[in-house]
Amino acid sequence: MRDKTAWIAVDWGTSNLRIWAMGADNTLLAERSSDQGMGGLDPSGFEPVLLAIIDEFLADSRVTPVICCGMVGARQGWVEADYLATPCTPPNGAGATRVTAQDPRIDVMILPGVKQLSPPDVMRGEETQIAGFLRDQPKFDGVLVMPGTHTKWVHISAEEVVSFQTFMTGEIYALLARQSVLRHSVAVTGWDDAAFEDGLSAAISRPESVAAKLFGLRAASLLSEASSESARAQLSGLLIGLELAATRPYWLGQNLAIIATPEIGAVYAKALALQGLQAKVYDAQPMTRSGLIAAYDSLLGAGE
Amino acid sequence: MRDKTAWIAVDWGTSNLRIWAMGADNTLLAERSSDQGMGGLDPSGFEPVLLAIIDEFLADSRVTPVICCGMVGARQGWVEADYLATPCTPPNGAGATRVTAQDPRIDVMILPGVKQLSPPDVMRGEETQIAGFLRDQPKFDGVLVMPGTHTKWVHISAEEVVSFQTFMTGEIYALLARQSVLRHSVAVTGWDDAAFEDGLSAAISRPESVAAKLFGLRAASLLSEASSESARAQLSGLLIGLELAATRPYWLGQNLAIIATPEIGAVYAKALALQGLQAKVYDAQPMTRSGLIAAYDSLLGAGE
Repeated sequence: MRDKTAWIAVDWGTSNLRIWAMGADNTLLAERSSDQGMGGLDPSGFEPVLLAIIDEFLADSRVTPVICCGMVGARQGWVEADYLATPCTPPNGAGATRVTAQDPRIDVMILPGVKQLSPPDVMRGEETQIAGFLRDQPKFDGVLVMPGTHTKWVHISAEEVVSFQTFMTGEIYALLARQSVLRHSVAVTGWDDAAFEDGLSAAISRPESVAAKLFGLRAASLLSEASSESARAQLSGLLIGLELAATRPYWLGQNLAIIATPEIGAVYAKALALQGLQAKVYDAQPMTRSGLIAAYDSLLGAGE
Repeated sequence: MRDKTAWIAVDWGTSNLRIWAMGADNTLLAERSSDQGMGGLDPSGFEPVLLAIIDEFLADSRVTPVICCGMVGARQGWVEADYLATPCTPPNGAGATRVTAQDPRIDVMILPGVKQLSPPDVMRGEETQIAGFLRDQPKFDGVLVMPGTHTKWVHISAEEVVSFQTFMTGEIYALLARQSVLRHSVAVTGWDDAAFEDGLSAAISRPESVAAKLFGLRAASLLSEASSESARAQLSGLLIGLELAATRPYWLGQNLAIIATPEIGAVYAKALALQGLQAKVYDAQPMTRSGLIAAYDSLLGAGE
């Protein structure tokens, strides 16, 4: 494997780290993952974590490029990488920030994120998924929905990121379901379609009602033994519904595509279908890898 | 002090415990507080915590009544106390649940909470503040606003709790400001009136915009070095504004009074004043004590 690995692709987010060993012609040789996300690391912690995972892929006789995207380039990350400003094509290797690594076998680069000045917004990682998506569908014109901890809604036209909006829906869901008083009433798994639709339609038609309905999930379980699976689906519906109410001017009459983990993607696809919108779900991981490949190719093309 | 203490009043919430040693004729002899709230205790933990604080007030020769209100009576508390159902007068001692204590020197009673069946809602502790408030102002007809971890809006008429609504505004604020990605951008203290008013009016006029504006607090601090004091005030304005948007049918054209800690009460009074509503702020602690006194008097009157 040491002989065959031409370069290494890295998606380093807040909570997780994914690594792909890539061969010549960008064949996928191996993949690894870890829960040592950026959120738990000091700047000095990144290189040891990376080396522990990729050592098996490194040749001693030559330098292996390591192309990274994601929160590893945030202010609290390994090294703060640049942002491109909207409107812009998603970043390729040209704007990458080189990291001074201790180990001479690796040449580490972190791809830039994308910023928007007004209203202020930032992304780190999604821009690489977008680059991967546009490699396959360069003609796409519409809105990419990228649900996760921080969901991005991204307007794409002429292969550019025109504008975007971020929602903390995933993080707020996790805080409410696991750390608030609702944790006693909201299941960790399980689902109830009717409860999801109830929450969704209440939030879309009267967004302010979300605030009134949250504690009701707790009270209902105390007074009527309402199921915690139903509460989970309703909480999800309320929060996604509030997001859909806020993004309506963004998605109305647009082409839509969803890039996410398949499970979360399916929930958003259902929510959009209930508004009469069809959106195909694309698995985020292959999009990230494809975006990293595009960045690597651009660096090769630039003679690096 | 052991000779003079006729009974002991206890406000035992999720996070805190407050105790008042009361003399004959309900004079206040001493007060104590602790952070050993119900949230951190098992059922077997309540009596030792209580005795460690009140031992100095207990006579050996007679039994001292201990009247409690708050989350100590919740399902996860010491003993689950009853609920009265709306519409109802706030509970007095008659519906109290007696706790079987190990120590023969105390006779512990927990006052009931109040429940509302539709839409489902519950309170534990606020009903005693309401009883205290109505002791002084029995003719009050309007809405009591009781901000805290879980803010209650309570419609009062003819000395009864007619209906109420609970909002998780305080808990959501704390989760976002201290545990979400916004913790990097939101100050622990400090204030900015203009930012508060911005957030408040945005949320009232377009409630769904709250979802879009939360991550913007983080992005603004990354891109423009926006102040964290301003972010704190804006977050507060957004969340209280969402609550005011949801409660508008409740407060429009009503008499309003606020019962809260003075600091939180002042923020809500300001938010309501910006809607053209004048609401006096009453300190919650004396109201609670007054409500516990009313309960004790009712037990005496009933011959206990």
